Amino acid sequence: MRLVKVVGSITSTIKDPSLEGFKILLVQCLQTDLKSREEYFVAVDTVGMGEGEIGLIVTGSTAKRTVRTRKKNVDAALVAKVDNIELEKNGQS
Amino acid sequence: MRLVKVVGSITSTIKDPSLEGFKILLVQCLQTDLKSREEYFVAVDTVGMGEGEIGLIVTGSTAKRTVRTRKKNVDAALVAKVDNIELEKNGQS
Amino acid sequence: MRLVKVVGSITSTIKDPSLEGFKILLVQCLQTDLKSREEYFVAVDTVGMGEGEIGLIVTGSTAKRTVRTRKKNVDAALVAKVDNIELEKNGQS
Amino acid sequence: MRLVKVVGSITSTIKDPSLEGFKILLVQCLQTDLKSREEYFVAVDTVGMGEGEIGLIVTGSTAKRTVRTRKKNVDAALVAKVDNIELEKNGQS
Amino acid sequence: MRLVKVVGSITSTIKDPSLEGFKILLVQCLQTDLKSREEYFVAVDTVGMGEGEIGLIVTGSTAKRTVRTRKKNVDAALVAKVDNIELEKNGQS
Repeated sequence: MRLVKVVGSITSTIKDPSLEGFKILLVQCLQTDLKSREEYFVAVDTVGMGEGEIGLIVTGSTAKRTVRTRKKNVDAALVAKVDNIELEKNGQS
Repeated sequence: MRLVKVVGSITSTIKDPSLEGFKILLVQCLQTDLKSREEYFVAVDTVGMGEGEIGLIVTGSTAKRTVRTRKKNVDAALVAKVDNIELEKNGQS
Repeated sequence: MRLVKVVGSITSTIKDPSLEGFKILLVQCLQTDLKSREEYFVAVDTVGMGEGEIGLIVTGSTAKRTVRTRKKNVDAALVAKVDNIELEKNGQS
Repeated sequence: MRLVKVVGSITSTIKDPSLEGFKILLVQCLQTDLKSREEYFVAVDTVGMGEGEIGLIVTGSTAKRTVRTRKKNVDAALVAKVDNIELEKNGQS
Repeated sequence: MRLVKVVGSITSTIKDPSLEGFKILLVQCLQTDLKSREEYFVAVDTVGMGEGEIGLIVTGSTAKRTVRTRKKNVDAALVAKVDNIELEKNGQS
């Protein structure tokens, strides 16, 4: 999984039928100190994420195995909202 | 998925039979501000994209599960035309 | 597999059901000299790793085939604790 | 798929049986302007490519689904010879 | 596949059962001129490689399809010893 922040959303009317009904979010990868990295994914939302929130995405074939994405043609899905990150040395972020 | 712009097209006569009949497009990955990144894919088109248009690609095994690419030997497919990108802080792009 | 160090842990209450019951760890990729690289994964623990320990992760579809992650929707899993790394030229690290 | 140029070939006598009978080529990824990138793959040839020629590779699980690589343990395969690349702004390359 | 050099070995007693019995090697990716790149994998050995030797790895789901890794939970496997690399312009390396 990768630690990401929701930075935007995408609307699309012409798309593969299996993407219908999903909220399509633009997510940015984060460092462990929660600073942004120059790495983005477009992920479908399976847990009700809002913009600015921090979560986890799965990518690759795993993305089409969650309860809500089963047999959907997605390669990135938000699968968890992050409540807290505890770092080894720097204490709680 | 990844946010991309169609920057060109490729013609090939000698190719794997499963690539027959597809428009093969050269796409460039985009930042959230729609600036180009130095990352390219060659993707088959499943939604009727034109050059200069912005869309989403799926990569990996997911690319061979869309309605039009089922059982085709592709590892990247355009699956959505992007109508609009709404960014958290910068408003509408 | 990739050589990683456990650098933190993540708590999440709203998540895909298949992630329930796993310790979710933040791991950082290492060079062969055990220096850290700017590459992170979030992995489920299958071998009882503690923070600061060095281990191996599998990523991609392999991550959902271990004894403890079978049919779980994960794309990265800690699958080994590393006891020792023997380097060709520099002797034992 | 990725746009690549064949830059060399590899010989190997001790190898996994499923690699027997394939020409194993060293390919270098290209930019859209056909300049080389510092990214290489070793791919099996399924379309009769020669050195210096430009083609497309598929990577990942797709590589073992082409007519000639079915059930072979390869993760990169040349699947098309490129005849022409038409770029949006710069005209024909 | 990727061109790699064996640079070390890893010992682990606490690990996923499917890793039992494999030699676990640390491999470094090579350029076509055989110079090292800052990219590493940890791969199981299926062809009897020694340290300092040059070979090919497969990564991803392909790694668990070789004769010796069938149904094993690995995502990188050494599948060939390289005898010779013939480069297009620079002659034999």
